[in-house]
Amino acid sequence: MTLPQAVASPQPAASGAHAGPHIAHSRLDNGMEVVVIPDHRAPVVTHMVWYRNGSADDPPLKSGIAHFLEHLMFKGTKNHPQGEFSSLVSDLGGQENAFTGHDYTSYFQRVPREHLATMMEYEADRMTNLVLTDEVVAPERDVVLEERRMRTDSDPGAELSEAVQAALFAHHPYGTPIIGWGHEIETLGREDALAYYERFYTPENAILVVAGDVQPADVEKLARDTYGRIPARGAPPVRRRPQEPPARARRHVSLADEKVEQPTYERVYVVPSARTAETGEAEALEVMTHLLGVGQSSRLYKQLVIEKPVAVAAGAYYMSSSLDATRLWVYGVPADDVSLDEFDTAIDGVIADFIANPPGDKEFERAKTRLVADAVYAQDSQVALARWYGAALAIGETIEDVSGWSARIEAVTPEAVVAVARKWLDKRRAVTGYLLPEAAA
Amino acid sequence: MTLPQAVASPQPAASGAHAGPHIAHSRLDNGMEVVVIPDHRAPVVTHMVWYRNGSADDPPLKSGIAHFLEHLMFKGTKNHPQGEFSSLVSDLGGQENAFTGHDYTSYFQRVPREHLATMMEYEADRMTNLVLTDEVVAPERDVVLEERRMRTDSDPGAELSEAVQAALFAHHPYGTPIIGWGHEIETLGREDALAYYERFYTPENAILVVAGDVQPADVEKLARDTYGRIPARGAPPVRRRPQEPPARARRHVSLADEKVEQPTYERVYVVPSARTAETGEAEALEVMTHLLGVGQSSRLYKQLVIEKPVAVAAGAYYMSSSLDATRLWVYGVPADDVSLDEFDTAIDGVIADFIANPPGDKEFERAKTRLVADAVYAQDSQVALARWYGAALAIGETIEDVSGWSARIEAVTPEAVVAVARKWLDKRRAVTGYLLPEAAA
Repeated sequence: MTLPQAVASPQPAASGAHAGPHIAHSRLDNGMEVVVIPDHRAPVVTHMVWYRNGSADDPPLKSGIAHFLEHLMFKGTKNHPQGEFSSLVSDLGGQENAFTGHDYTSYFQRVPREHLATMMEYEADRMTNLVLTDEVVAPERDVVLEERRMRTDSDPGAELSEAVQAALFAHHPYGTPIIGWGHEIETLGREDALAYYERFYTPENAILVVAGDVQPADVEKLARDTYGRIPARGAPPVRRRPQEPPARARRHVSLADEKVEQPTYERVYVVPSARTAETGEAEALEVMTHLLGVGQSSRLYKQLVIEKPVAVAAGAYYMSSSLDATRLWVYGVPADDVSLDEFDTAIDGVIADFIANPPGDKEFERAKTRLVADAVYAQDSQVALARWYGAALAIGETIEDVSGWSARIEAVTPEAVVAVARKWLDKRRAVTGYLLPEAAA
Repeated sequence: MTLPQAVASPQPAASGAHAGPHIAHSRLDNGMEVVVIPDHRAPVVTHMVWYRNGSADDPPLKSGIAHFLEHLMFKGTKNHPQGEFSSLVSDLGGQENAFTGHDYTSYFQRVPREHLATMMEYEADRMTNLVLTDEVVAPERDVVLEERRMRTDSDPGAELSEAVQAALFAHHPYGTPIIGWGHEIETLGREDALAYYERFYTPENAILVVAGDVQPADVEKLARDTYGRIPARGAPPVRRRPQEPPARARRHVSLADEKVEQPTYERVYVVPSARTAETGEAEALEVMTHLLGVGQSSRLYKQLVIEKPVAVAAGAYYMSSSLDATRLWVYGVPADDVSLDEFDTAIDGVIADFIANPPGDKEFERAKTRLVADAVYAQDSQVALARWYGAALAIGETIEDVSGWSARIEAVTPEAVVAVARKWLDKRRAVTGYLLPEAAA
């Protein structure tokens, strides 16, 4: 089962928790947002810049440009030649990374706290001073094409997921892979990259997130002295995304390949995201997904893997953090003597039973408790914490949306969970994917 | 079975034939092409203007604009108020129509020959002098939305075909319906229509086709005096279309609706068009489709409807006239006690048998003879003849491509037919559509 949602994507936004840290949130004069998350457990700092543009904002005929530019952002600036920034982070004993999602692009470093100012200088520098020549652009395009060949074109599971997403979204760019279509990546050049950079890499479009052993006032002053020197452009860039027409047809995608040894199954529904849902619906979907398919006490696992057993794996996954309507997966691996069609029918049975015989109070409260506990536990990671806030703000959520998440999960009722299952787990609008050995084609 | 390929679309381009008419082909100084097809059987003339832009050239977020503008072209100009042109055609005992396809838009009138000059004056007038106000645009948008509701949203077969096309084309705009997606049509306004009109309604982008009881020299003089007065823009507009990534996954779409009484079946392959095919391949696909699924002596009909019988209808259709890679349908209606899955398997059997036991000389020659004869017969219609040439030129074919069609069909070999069947009827890249009664969902 492959769920390639992002090139190095963050985890699902099981965001925030009980009595989280005191977050400072402000804005520079040029429009750039500043978020500081104090965390004094160790003398380190996580420094992230998020841009509110991802692959779903790629211009027509230019799929992959968001991800390609993320690569090119490591190619040096007017002030610092290629490799200098990365070498510096490494010399400081730090880590760095970058990732492109459908809705955002992000850059981060984790270093000893005394080097925060340096990170900010370098990151602010490459927000405006990137230098791109054909000599660096062309070979990097080959790197990306090779990345695509390795990750997708040589992996039948990834190919199937790509075809499933394409079938799921007839019109919305979530149907286009983050890395782009190969034949369009091949055409991306220096001019495309610079035009994209000019459009999206602006202070109005950026969010600074700093988590670590720092004081908000100090970070804000450093931000003014680095990012604050970048001139405002006047307005944030506009995201122009085709939206999806209503779907009524059930779709099925199957891919057979000689590299496949074990048939696998995925079913994907388009469902509301944290941004598009009516009040309470995203939280109910979160709890519902947990009850249905997260962990070994979930309905799917218990009924299909333990009780019957018709599967060796079964679960569900809800990607709540998304600017537009998002996806909910039900997936699994059937047992040796079970066909994918039989497994499909068995999943229908689990969902129908879930609606007819919803979880009792005990099952229900245990799921909510664990969901919230998982979130609290995950906050233990400074990087994960910074990612939650960054991703949430990048898709238009507020600090309060994140910090109030646990309370909203606690408020979900059993009735709301059954209601969202009944409303959204509608197979008539879903795509089902089968990955098969070549012989079974 | 619904094959809504175009809003009032032309027939498949079984174009040209033996010893066709002598066609005159020239170009005005402003770049507009002029095609004259003499036909002296009756004192009438068919006057058409073709623009090399169709719904597949709709800008992002503006699906439906090509078709919407076709409606708006009847809304009057600086010189002639709304309705005057249409009333005139009607008063002359003539006919008029317009159609939008994926690749072109066309306007035509059929009138007594002495009124050709008047038609040209009016048509040239609306190529440059269209007047659009919000007062006419807004109500016409409602007309188009109602057209969409009536033709597609109330017709499960049309809805299924729309979903099948969307699944077939992950990226190329042939996956978007010609009429557009409802939520985007709703946003189309006067400015969008004018911008589109300015971009595409230019002499460099237009083809005049006149068929009828006329002399080429007379038509060319009239063309210079009317269309020739329109200033050149300097260059034809550029078509910017996303192209399709390679497909490896088999896709299936099913739609159940209470309005459906009879299950129906369609399978669509992406295949080369007359424009994209290697030499001889489009002609071989044409002959192959004929042998496989056109008429009651075709393999699909004989084996599935007469011999077994598992179906009440079965056939195939190849849409050769297309700028980019196109579609080949196999479709049918299973008998009462036969499921769509069984019918699907039966079609696989017919195709496998076609490849294993290709048609003998007699069956093969009969198919080519009938294919060519059908084309000759269809030339009897002046409008059909004009459409063939107009559509062919609009997608970039030449007069010779059309007039040489019969000879190229005659040259197709049995080996070439088997080769294209083997190469292109690859279920692993096709979409299958099931239309089902609600109860069977």
